[in-house]
Amino acid sequence: MRQALHTLTVRTPGRGLVEITGEVSRWVAGQGIGTGLLTLFCRHTSASLLVQENAAPAVRADLEAFFEDLAPEARGRYAHDDEGPDDMPAHLRAALTGVQLSIPVAEGRAVLGTWQGIYLFEHRRAAHRREVALHLIGA
Amino acid sequence: MRQALHTLTVRTPGRGLVEITGEVSRWVAGQGIGTGLLTLFCRHTSASLLVQENAAPAVRADLEAFFEDLAPEARGRYAHDDEGPDDMPAHLRAALTGVQLSIPVAEGRAVLGTWQGIYLFEHRRAAHRREVALHLIGA
Amino acid sequence: MRQALHTLTVRTPGRGLVEITGEVSRWVAGQGIGTGLLTLFCRHTSASLLVQENAAPAVRADLEAFFEDLAPEARGRYAHDDEGPDDMPAHLRAALTGVQLSIPVAEGRAVLGTWQGIYLFEHRRAAHRREVALHLIGA
Repeated sequence: MRQALHTLTVRTPGRGLVEITGEVSRWVAGQGIGTGLLTLFCRHTSASLLVQENAAPAVRADLEAFFEDLAPEARGRYAHDDEGPDDMPAHLRAALTGVQLSIPVAEGRAVLGTWQGIYLFEHRRAAHRREVALHLIGA
Repeated sequence: MRQALHTLTVRTPGRGLVEITGEVSRWVAGQGIGTGLLTLFCRHTSASLLVQENAAPAVRADLEAFFEDLAPEARGRYAHDDEGPDDMPAHLRAALTGVQLSIPVAEGRAVLGTWQGIYLFEHRRAAHRREVALHLIGA
Repeated sequence: MRQALHTLTVRTPGRGLVEITGEVSRWVAGQGIGTGLLTLFCRHTSASLLVQENAAPAVRADLEAFFEDLAPEARGRYAHDDEGPDDMPAHLRAALTGVQLSIPVAEGRAVLGTWQGIYLFEHRRAAHRREVALHLIGA
């Protein structure tokens, strides 16, 4: 039984979903672990991790619009607004979607379904550099 | 330290919660692992996994109604509607509830609380056959 | 490779976020495991676990207000109300935020970001005694 740790740096262009399935899969494949458990952890409170449909780009646009509506920017609505009107909505979106994912690994690959991709969900308007910690344990 | 992997197939009758605690517990009990970590991963983007109250059936009905209201079917609201009016709401509901669960195992059992059950949450109207990957690591 | 299991008992004063980062970190540090994976599991269906901003207290107040609005108490709205008007909203809030967290461990510490804290999110009005199962695997 072995472990591997890595930090993935993801540059986001501002709000929306950035697919990271490729980078994550390449890192997993390079660890020489056939069967195991992969964990991703987003080290931020205004970005999150999501498994979502990887085929239709419209799904990503609808997701973004849904969360903009659910946790809207609105002057005066939030007590916390020192860091801009998009900051508190970003925390709410991260609370709703979560900062962590664990995925079993078989034959050196995360067992994602055919239509599943792994996404970093950026919740701030501005471009950011996000750190995702990766942990793999297995044999 | 050992690992076990399994795929559970769950047949759903359409929208709503299907309890899988029994099948999952039986598989865990059969692996001969006393202390460990159990991970469940739903390999779909329109179904999810939930730990919820296992006693009152009304809780399941209220949960279903809440999510129908939060992410309603509505012609014209979503850009993505090629797969039917229930498809994009299903993706939104899966994003809000998550496709993965990890539960510590002690004395050969997942340490669920007294009132907790594990549910597959089907978000499509039609009956589906869903795959849940199970991973167990421990000793 | 080793494992450790523990149950953390958290006393909540009623609705809102209770930070548990300190207790969790001390337990992890005491297990003699440098690299590994930490999993927290909340054994209840009306409380949940959240990684959130640990700096500005206003964030916690805004989070609480947001969820009160999203899943409001409302007589007659829910089929399940035997345990009081705050019970079904509590289940909904727990479904949206989740009862489980896994965080990689490096150099004997969970790899939380600078502004991240671990919180137990109490969803009932009354004070409660909550159990959080902790599992650590690593070397």
